[in-house]
Amino acid sequence: MNGQMQAPNPERLSINTATLRGKWDLAQIIDGCARHGVRAISPWRDQVHDLGLGETARRIREAGLAVSGYCRGGMFTHADEAGERAARDDNRRAVDEALEVGAQCLVLVVGGLAGGSKDLNRARLQVRDGIAALLDYARPRGMPIAIEPLHPMYAADRACVNTMRQANDLCDELGDEGLGIAVDLYHTWWDPELEAQIRRAGVPRVLAFHICDWLVPTQSLLLDRGMMGDGVIDIARWRRLVESLGYTGFHEVEIFSAENWWKRDPDEVLEICKSRHLAHG
Amino acid sequence: MNGQMQAPNPERLSINTATLRGKWDLAQIIDGCARHGVRAISPWRDQVHDLGLGETARRIREAGLAVSGYCRGGMFTHADEAGERAARDDNRRAVDEALEVGAQCLVLVVGGLAGGSKDLNRARLQVRDGIAALLDYARPRGMPIAIEPLHPMYAADRACVNTMRQANDLCDELGDEGLGIAVDLYHTWWDPELEAQIRRAGVPRVLAFHICDWLVPTQSLLLDRGMMGDGVIDIARWRRLVESLGYTGFHEVEIFSAENWWKRDPDEVLEICKSRHLAHG
Repeated sequence: MNGQMQAPNPERLSINTATLRGKWDLAQIIDGCARHGVRAISPWRDQVHDLGLGETARRIREAGLAVSGYCRGGMFTHADEAGERAARDDNRRAVDEALEVGAQCLVLVVGGLAGGSKDLNRARLQVRDGIAALLDYARPRGMPIAIEPLHPMYAADRACVNTMRQANDLCDELGDEGLGIAVDLYHTWWDPELEAQIRRAGVPRVLAFHICDWLVPTQSLLLDRGMMGDGVIDIARWRRLVESLGYTGFHEVEIFSAENWWKRDPDEVLEICKSRHLAHG
Repeated sequence: MNGQMQAPNPERLSINTATLRGKWDLAQIIDGCARHGVRAISPWRDQVHDLGLGETARRIREAGLAVSGYCRGGMFTHADEAGERAARDDNRRAVDEALEVGAQCLVLVVGGLAGGSKDLNRARLQVRDGIAALLDYARPRGMPIAIEPLHPMYAADRACVNTMRQANDLCDELGDEGLGIAVDLYHTWWDPELEAQIRRAGVPRVLAFHICDWLVPTQSLLLDRGMMGDGVIDIARWRRLVESLGYTGFHEVEIFSAENWWKRDPDEVLEICKSRHLAHG
């Protein structure tokens, strides 16, 4: 890893729309990002559905924004065949939507324990099988799938893929064509194997790079993520590492923050995202 | 692993005194555990200091209780030499205290990022060096040291040893004499490598086995642990695994629960610990 301090390229900043959802709807977020000179966004499906898929795609196109990822597919774990079918169908729709908005990848939150199960091994096998089935649909359509390892504190209710090692193992098993990993530092910064597993992944397996910060103390497991620089993650170190491996994609800021950033003026949040991205990204 | 359902031996139940600290002081906890037929406790140092070390040791002895562990040593990470010396001295006192109360091991919470550092690698090296230095003191005195991997959500502020793999690596590097691991399911249940790393550790490296449950949702990162059976951890599976490897030690119940168990009548909590240990332990 290059130890020099290299500032991030501001044109690589992407805003995950969850960051601004406290006060703006998706149309306002698209307008706001374009107005602030942000070059890319990553929209959430519920916001897209509210605005309308075609309308979303049109507005993103007219604003000249790239789409660094589409949030989200996944939730593959299920208690029965009906749940499995529902997940399969919903994931195919997510691929179609990702294609329509021109996303660079469909990001997966793979699902946790379903239906009262305590069997994580079973959930993890369901995830593997669900991704395999989704790849049969996504590969011929050209939509890359990005497995996002989530922090272990979400293993039960959101995602049972919790480390880069697991995500790499899944890519090895299922094949790299149209499959990769979204590296989100909030979820992975603690991992003693992070550097080794990012190197193992390499580029292009690293399809997306998400940044925010881990606050001390963290008040909520879900909605207390920090702005870059307000926490303990050495974001610049990891950005330099992925770029040293050839990553040229966006640095996507995804901040869930019910009590702080979601309550602020989104124009202010965007200004701070830009300055903190330069200072700490 | 033996797939049969084998109930845990109720004589293996130990109560970590944090579980009852909401309403009882340590003297009451010792009396209460003895009254309920519990065979072992694991006391916290602040409670011991409040009661007095000699008085604590006397009461535990007279109650006929074993001490499954002493909580805690550690906090090895430091910003400067003064911090390093303070940690070293405090850890030696912890060994002395553990000896006086007759603990089976001194449990380590190793420390997180100190002094505003974002360098987890450095913190982890400080932990390794701190444990090595502590072993020089503890080994000749015969007090085993148990590294406790803590959940990754505590990596910043409590412990930067977050997986069984790390703990095993430390034991390999520092030598097994007088050194082992406290396996706490609350911290490790999510780990895809847990079974492999418990098998790698084997017995006697597994010096302690801590149980409680992971609640969904979890309201607080620190103080919302669940009673066995109220969450998603397959406790019986892991208890059977460690026992299949030869573990004959205690099953220590450690529940931090500001809004629930700490508010209840401790006699009721003890009754429920006993019944849930049998049903879900």
